[in-house]
Amino acid sequence: MLDIFGKPLFYAPEALSGQVLLSEEESRHCALSLRGKEGDVIFLTDGKGTIARAQLTKIHPKSSMVLVLETEAVDKFPIFRRLVVSPPKTGDRLDWMIEKVVEIGVDEIVLIQSRYSERDKVNLERLQKIAVSAMKQSKQAFLPQIIGVQKWKQFIEKPVDGDKFIATIDSSVPSRRLLDVTKQSSGSSFTILIGPEGDFSEEEVKQALEKGFVPVSLGKNILRTETASLYSIVCFNSSREA
Amino acid sequence: MLDIFGKPLFYAPEALSGQVLLSEEESRHCALSLRGKEGDVIFLTDGKGTIARAQLTKIHPKSSMVLVLETEAVDKFPIFRRLVVSPPKTGDRLDWMIEKVVEIGVDEIVLIQSRYSERDKVNLERLQKIAVSAMKQSKQAFLPQIIGVQKWKQFIEKPVDGDKFIATIDSSVPSRRLLDVTKQSSGSSFTILIGPEGDFSEEEVKQALEKGFVPVSLGKNILRTETASLYSIVCFNSSREA
Repeated sequence: MLDIFGKPLFYAPEALSGQVLLSEEESRHCALSLRGKEGDVIFLTDGKGTIARAQLTKIHPKSSMVLVLETEAVDKFPIFRRLVVSPPKTGDRLDWMIEKVVEIGVDEIVLIQSRYSERDKVNLERLQKIAVSAMKQSKQAFLPQIIGVQKWKQFIEKPVDGDKFIATIDSSVPSRRLLDVTKQSSGSSFTILIGPEGDFSEEEVKQALEKGFVPVSLGKNILRTETASLYSIVCFNSSREA
Repeated sequence: MLDIFGKPLFYAPEALSGQVLLSEEESRHCALSLRGKEGDVIFLTDGKGTIARAQLTKIHPKSSMVLVLETEAVDKFPIFRRLVVSPPKTGDRLDWMIEKVVEIGVDEIVLIQSRYSERDKVNLERLQKIAVSAMKQSKQAFLPQIIGVQKWKQFIEKPVDGDKFIATIDSSVPSRRLLDVTKQSSGSSFTILIGPEGDFSEEEVKQALEKGFVPVSLGKNILRTETASLYSIVCFNSSREA
């Protein structure tokens, strides 16, 4: 097994074989921050499950090149982990929500615009960069997909596979704790639906329940949107052995 | 039970009975942000387990007053949750670590300076304010204590009660998953020890193991200090019914 612990990991979405040209961003990182030299060995991931050991053959702050020496397929997490969330109002809370759920481990993030959403536009390119950086930082080989912003109606009318949960703070809706439910499930795909600060509307909760979303509790405290997202993703990742 | 859901909660560390003078900060919040009026009903917590329903008797941006109408004792979480962590280098990562672990639920945060720590000073007053704000935001009645920065030697030589864990990323140290261990424990106090980005030194790990800290895993991904803290606190809170 390739031991990448403590070593920098680069992102190269192309096929990892032969000579690979690094992107401008990764070339800059390699040439300037890391001060790589020709012949240095680095690690790459394609974000699709492959990690490669490679040798720097050309150092250039805009177009560095590497020669792939060896590749390895990394096992996917045994469950598909999907976070569906109404993005927090402030940009920094959205940024760190993305960073943290990617670090901990998620496969798909769907940003939705529900009735009481406080934000209907995001800079997807920026969020994607944060996701790439968090993937590299935490030494993962899979880059999660970020989708959005989808309108509630558009989201709720499409079928969602696997186990589906909706985080609820409404004490009139009976709910079990998320971790207890996921621990007992043998399903291979988990989806959690997290509302905005103002929560989902009654109508939205009703629609979600009709579509088979199971109400779950994330504990007694009232959590902010980004904290609820993180909490849920820790539960998903703790419910099965990686 | 007092229903404070969706209602602003104020912090007043004094005894909650009769007339209570709000602090400058809480008075400003009450008078200016909330635009409170005489006769309005608000909620207070002393951060020690009591919540009060109270009526505004004087509105002033520096010295508002309330009359306590009713108080209620809130149950403590069934486990004492202690986070011992080497603070992250950048202030914003430290700030949000405090915000998030308080929101999710923690009883004591001990900041320590270990061999590879990147920060040996913090602004405790600022962190305390963040903790108060997160407690109010998440509608809790207990304010966690923040202690630090303690030197490693000083920390490790004092006895720590209850179940003690050290998060490890060293694959040569056999470790079980934190959640599996806490789920099986009937202990009433959990402590997790989280190292800096550069991890604990070998010597520090050795000392912790000698003192009875059990090595635990937080999953396969390499987590930043603040993410590991958060992950652990979610596990502590998920391992028992609140």
